Amino acid sequence: MTARQSIVLTILATFTVVSAARGADPLPSWNDGAAKQAILEFVERTTTVGSPEFVPPAQRIAVFDNDGTLWAEQPLYFQLLFILDRVKSLTPQHPEWQTQEPFASLLKGDVKAALAGGERALGELAMATHAGMTTEEFATIVTDWIATARHPKTGRLLTEMVYQPMLEVLAYLRSNGFKTFIVSGGGVEFMRPWSERVYGIPPEQLIGSSIKTEYELRDGKPVLVRLPEINFVDDKDGKPVGIHQHIGRRPIAAFGNSDGDLQMLQWTAAGKGPRLCMLVHHTDAQREWAYDRDSHIGRLDRGLDEGSQRRWTIVSIRDDWKRVFPFEQSGEDGEK
Amino acid sequence: MTARQSIVLTILATFTVVSAARGADPLPSWNDGAAKQAILEFVERTTTVGSPEFVPPAQRIAVFDNDGTLWAEQPLYFQLLFILDRVKSLTPQHPEWQTQEPFASLLKGDVKAALAGGERALGELAMATHAGMTTEEFATIVTDWIATARHPKTGRLLTEMVYQPMLEVLAYLRSNGFKTFIVSGGGVEFMRPWSERVYGIPPEQLIGSSIKTEYELRDGKPVLVRLPEINFVDDKDGKPVGIHQHIGRRPIAAFGNSDGDLQMLQWTAAGKGPRLCMLVHHTDAQREWAYDRDSHIGRLDRGLDEGSQRRWTIVSIRDDWKRVFPFEQSGEDGEK
Repeated sequence: MTARQSIVLTILATFTVVSAARGADPLPSWNDGAAKQAILEFVERTTTVGSPEFVPPAQRIAVFDNDGTLWAEQPLYFQLLFILDRVKSLTPQHPEWQTQEPFASLLKGDVKAALAGGERALGELAMATHAGMTTEEFATIVTDWIATARHPKTGRLLTEMVYQPMLEVLAYLRSNGFKTFIVSGGGVEFMRPWSERVYGIPPEQLIGSSIKTEYELRDGKPVLVRLPEINFVDDKDGKPVGIHQHIGRRPIAAFGNSDGDLQMLQWTAAGKGPRLCMLVHHTDAQREWAYDRDSHIGRLDRGLDEGSQRRWTIVSIRDDWKRVFPFEQSGEDGEK
Repeated sequence: MTARQSIVLTILATFTVVSAARGADPLPSWNDGAAKQAILEFVERTTTVGSPEFVPPAQRIAVFDNDGTLWAEQPLYFQLLFILDRVKSLTPQHPEWQTQEPFASLLKGDVKAALAGGERALGELAMATHAGMTTEEFATIVTDWIATARHPKTGRLLTEMVYQPMLEVLAYLRSNGFKTFIVSGGGVEFMRPWSERVYGIPPEQLIGSSIKTEYELRDGKPVLVRLPEINFVDDKDGKPVGIHQHIGRRPIAAFGNSDGDLQMLQWTAAGKGPRLCMLVHHTDAQREWAYDRDSHIGRLDRGLDEGSQRRWTIVSIRDDWKRVFPFEQSGEDGEK
C-alpha cells in the first residue's frame, strides 16, 4: 500500500465513523412522534450554519425545571423526603419537637397532619433542617443523605429516579453547543452536591430557591452560615426573575411539567427567533404516575390549556417515552 | 515532491506553529517580576497533568472585581457617571428635581454637594435612574450610553479605560480551561450589555449588586419590571455570599483592588489546594492614578496589611505593568 492509499483509507475510515455517529439516534428512549421530532428539528434549525434560524452558540441557553421534569416528584417532592429524614435525625437534639407541631405529627409518622399547617408548617420544617449550619456542612449532609436515600415506592436510589429521555435531551443539546441550566422551585443547595454527577450540570448552572447566608470568620476561618430566612423563591413568577438575575439573557428552550413552570415558558417563548417550549405531561400510571389538573404535587392545569393554545410541545410520558427510568430494560420488553 | 514529503512538511509546519504559540509570552504587558511569575507558575502547576497540584477544569474558577481591577474607577466610579448623565436626561420629565436634593445640586454641576447626603443620596439617585423600566429597556439605555460615554480626564471611551494586563490575564486563564467570573459591587445589569464584548465574559458569568424585578404581563407580553428596591449588595461580606449563591463552588483564583474585595480573597484563600490571590495596587500617578489607604474610591487599607501578611500577590501598576491601557503604545516608548 502506498502512502497515498493509506491516507485515503484513513480519511475514508474517519468519514465512516463520523457519519455513523451522525446517523445514531441521539434520543433512543423517545418514541418516534411529534415531540421527538420537535426536539430534533429545533436543534437542526438553530445549529445549522446558514440556516435562517441559526443561533450563535453563546445564545443557546436551555432551561429545565427539576422536580417532575428531570426526576420524579411522586408520591412527594424528594426534598420533602430529605426534610422528613432530617427531622428524625435531629430529634435527639430537640426533645421539644415531641410535643410541638408540625414536628410532633411527623415523628408519629403522620405526614399529612404535619403538613396540614400549609406553607407555614413546611417553612418551619424546612428552616429547622436547612439552616443553622455552614454551607459546607449542609453540602456534606446532602451528599451523605442522597448517597443512600431510596424511593418509598420503587426502592431505587432517588438519583436513579431520573428520566432517561430527559438525560438524552440534556446530552443532545450540550453536544450541539447548548448550555443547560436547571431552574427549580427546589433548594439550589439541595441540588448542587449531585447535579453534576447525575445530570452533567455544574453548580454554577443551577438556579433554585434559597435561604440567606452570612459571611463570618470563625477562629480566623471564613464560613458562610445558613440563616433561617428566605432569600428567593424560584417558582412561578420567580422563575423568569431568577433566570434573568442569574443568566442575564433569555433562554431559547425551556422544559417544565407544571403550572409552576408556566411563566418560565412564557418568558422563553416571548423572545424573538426560534423557540422550543415543552411540558412533560405525566400520563403513565403504569411505569410512572398519572396526574395533572387536580394534583397537589406538580399540578398542570393552566399550562395544559395555554400550552395547547400556544402550540407548545406537550410530551405524553405514556406515548412519547419508550423508556422512563434508566434502570428499566429498554424498548417494549422493558419492566413495567 | 511526493505525497509523503508533502505530509511531512505539513506536519513539521504545524509543529512549528504550535511551539511558536507555546513560546509566545501570554502576558506581554507585564514586566518580568514576582507578580507575573506568580500568575504563570500558578497556571502551570494547576493545569499540568500529573502535577501534585493539578486542578480539574471544572474547578478552575477565577473571580475578578471590576472597578479598579479590570477598568479604572477614578475620578469616580463609571456607574456614577452614568447616573449623573441619566439624571440630566430625565430632568425634563422631573421638574421637581430643580429644587429637590440631591438632584438640585447635581443639576447645578455640584457633584460633591449632591453626594454629601452619603448612601441615602446615592440610593435616591440610583433608584431614580435604574428603576421603573423593564430589564430590556434598561439594557438598551446602558448600551446606548456606553457606546459614546467618555472619560472626563482622558477623553477616551469608558470601555477603552480597561487594563490591558488584566485583559491578558483573563484570556490566558480561559485558554487554560479556567472559567472567568466578574464579582463586582457595581450593578450587574449595568455590566451585562458590554462585558462579553469588552472582557469576553458572558452575562451568565457576572455577579453584581442588583435591585428587585417583578414579572408582569403587559398586553399579554411578559416583561420584567425593575423596582426601586435593593435586592443584593455585592460588596465586602456580600462578595463571598454572591459567589456561593451564583457559582456554588469556591474559586481558586481571585483578583481585586480594594478593601471591598478583602472577603472575596479571604474566602478564595481558605479553600484547600493551590490558590492565587491578587490585589492591584494603584501606584502610578503618571499613567493612571495613585491611591490606597486614604482614598474615598477604591480604598485599599486593610487589604494591604492582610495581603502582605498572607503573602498574597500585590501588583504595583507602576512597577509591574509595562502598559496600562490598550490605547497606549506598548513598551517603554508608550505614551504616558
